[in-house]
Amino acid sequence: MTQTGNGGPSPSPTFGDRLSTAVAERESQIVLGIDPDPAKLWPAAIDRTSEARARLALTFSDAEEAAGEQPPRPGVVARLETAAAVLAHCRAMIDAVAPAVVAVKPQLACFERLGAPGWLALEHITSYAREQGLLVLADGKRGDVPVTAAAYGQALVASTPSPFGHVDGLGADAFTANPLLGRDSLEPLVQAAREHGAGVFVLVRTSNPGAADILDAQLATGERLWEHLARLVDELGQAGPAGLKDIGAVTGATEPEHLQRLRELMPHTPFLLPGIGAQGGDIASVAPAFAPGRAAGLVTASRSIANAHEATGATPSDAARAEAERLREQAWGLA
Amino acid sequence: MTQTGNGGPSPSPTFGDRLSTAVAERESQIVLGIDPDPAKLWPAAIDRTSEARARLALTFSDAEEAAGEQPPRPGVVARLETAAAVLAHCRAMIDAVAPAVVAVKPQLACFERLGAPGWLALEHITSYAREQGLLVLADGKRGDVPVTAAAYGQALVASTPSPFGHVDGLGADAFTANPLLGRDSLEPLVQAAREHGAGVFVLVRTSNPGAADILDAQLATGERLWEHLARLVDELGQAGPAGLKDIGAVTGATEPEHLQRLRELMPHTPFLLPGIGAQGGDIASVAPAFAPGRAAGLVTASRSIANAHEATGATPSDAARAEAERLREQAWGLA
Repeated sequence: MTQTGNGGPSPSPTFGDRLSTAVAERESQIVLGIDPDPAKLWPAAIDRTSEARARLALTFSDAEEAAGEQPPRPGVVARLETAAAVLAHCRAMIDAVAPAVVAVKPQLACFERLGAPGWLALEHITSYAREQGLLVLADGKRGDVPVTAAAYGQALVASTPSPFGHVDGLGADAFTANPLLGRDSLEPLVQAAREHGAGVFVLVRTSNPGAADILDAQLATGERLWEHLARLVDELGQAGPAGLKDIGAVTGATEPEHLQRLRELMPHTPFLLPGIGAQGGDIASVAPAFAPGRAAGLVTASRSIANAHEATGATPSDAARAEAERLREQAWGLA
Repeated sequence: MTQTGNGGPSPSPTFGDRLSTAVAERESQIVLGIDPDPAKLWPAAIDRTSEARARLALTFSDAEEAAGEQPPRPGVVARLETAAAVLAHCRAMIDAVAPAVVAVKPQLACFERLGAPGWLALEHITSYAREQGLLVLADGKRGDVPVTAAAYGQALVASTPSPFGHVDGLGADAFTANPLLGRDSLEPLVQAAREHGAGVFVLVRTSNPGAADILDAQLATGERLWEHLARLVDELGQAGPAGLKDIGAVTGATEPEHLQRLRELMPHTPFLLPGIGAQGGDIASVAPAFAPGRAAGLVTASRSIANAHEATGATPSDAARAEAERLREQAWGLA
């Protein structure tokens, strides 16, 4: 904590300020979505499974004292190998595209399906991305009653007191959240994030066709549900000196006609824009997101980067880097 | 798979049928909520941390080959100890109350906040509860776009193909889901569950005060949002011979005046009723849930069981057993 001119401690930077700085320094608004599919890993990553497995194993080295007393459960070896290959794949992706992106967005479901070793791989990837100077946006779309929301806050950005000392959470810079259970379910998430200079991206309008079923429902007030959610998100956020709020919104880019209205309702909110590339969005259509400044619109791409080599014939890492750089230039040029 | 009279294979039992059978056999509609707080573990569980730690460590015994090359990361020991103590605590709770309950409902947030060792503890608790003949309802309230929803299905009830073989998921009997993203976000969850004889409990009306903000919003059609969600859940479910559907609803028991209406809209849907005990609900008020039969209403209690000893002075396990049995008798007597 640094000292300000009047002698008091200056507050830690808010997530909005951190995001603004990171986007300016890296000259990128692109977020690498990390949604690893074990059936589509880069071949070189599979070759490096043994090396990655050693990384995973080391964290559990305390286990050796108890080892050998009974055989591993069926499937334990397969999932350790898979988690290791996924870790190698994600590290290779980060190495390839780091110069073109400002953040990574690991999809928690893709790690949870590999059980405890998958969560361990997620932790390694989070640390690795942060070491490369990238922000980490944990994409789990969590939402629950307040006491449980507080536990999710501990899991993602804070820590948990225990008789054995504090247990650190994932240490993400921000995470996605689901607002269905109302304001009191979001408040513990916002509080945990804010105390750690982290952010929350709340679902407002997603990019899947089914979003029309609920999020587009018209309310008796005349508003659509997503407009009601947008007002809530705008109220929850607080801006630092850079002017960008610390509570963001997930705003699907496949419905660009909504973006203008979303920006009206949330003039200082960072937008997380999925739906580019494999989900069919067009980067030029998201320009309204950038109205308050470049850092106000983060453009996410996952499969279009990870699988770019399938179309081009280049190596996976060269193709991924080229695609990320292409997106970066396009988005940067819109401002 | 057994053979039917006409020579074809009989289908595996649906979750609705499995639930009906389990409730009848165990004469209980009570679900033990497992929301372990590391700061409030039963003292005897902390004493058994070493034993539980060996259980956790064994699964990672493959790790020994790589052990010793570098020191554990800071905090790794604290979280291993904490996860082990949580495991011992949860096993002791299951031992104490198994005779009085039909299922356990682990709260995923409480394990995620302990990182990879926490997820490993969750896996052990899931296996242990199933060994005791209990159903396991994984409470994570997941919801995401279809491709990610499919990954959550793999994580909770199915498995994930990989170059190293199939990676088994958690193996839950059912899980909770969030419907905000619409029907197409629920369908992959329903499909994964149904293929494995498992169930999904979809959030319809929760028990927190903030549920009024969104779930009670009145739509232009005159319905409230939760009524709209109830219709969707009713459509998604399929009933087996026992008549109970395989897709359930989370219906907060702190608003009992809603239960009659919910039952009208979902006449054959199992209801998961949180809000008893610590959250303030009254068990007699949930009678409408049981109209289609005893298995149609599952009564969840978490802190009121785990912390029962604080009021009575009995040992934690005796107090928990007595409280669970008290709830069981009350609920069973309502039918």
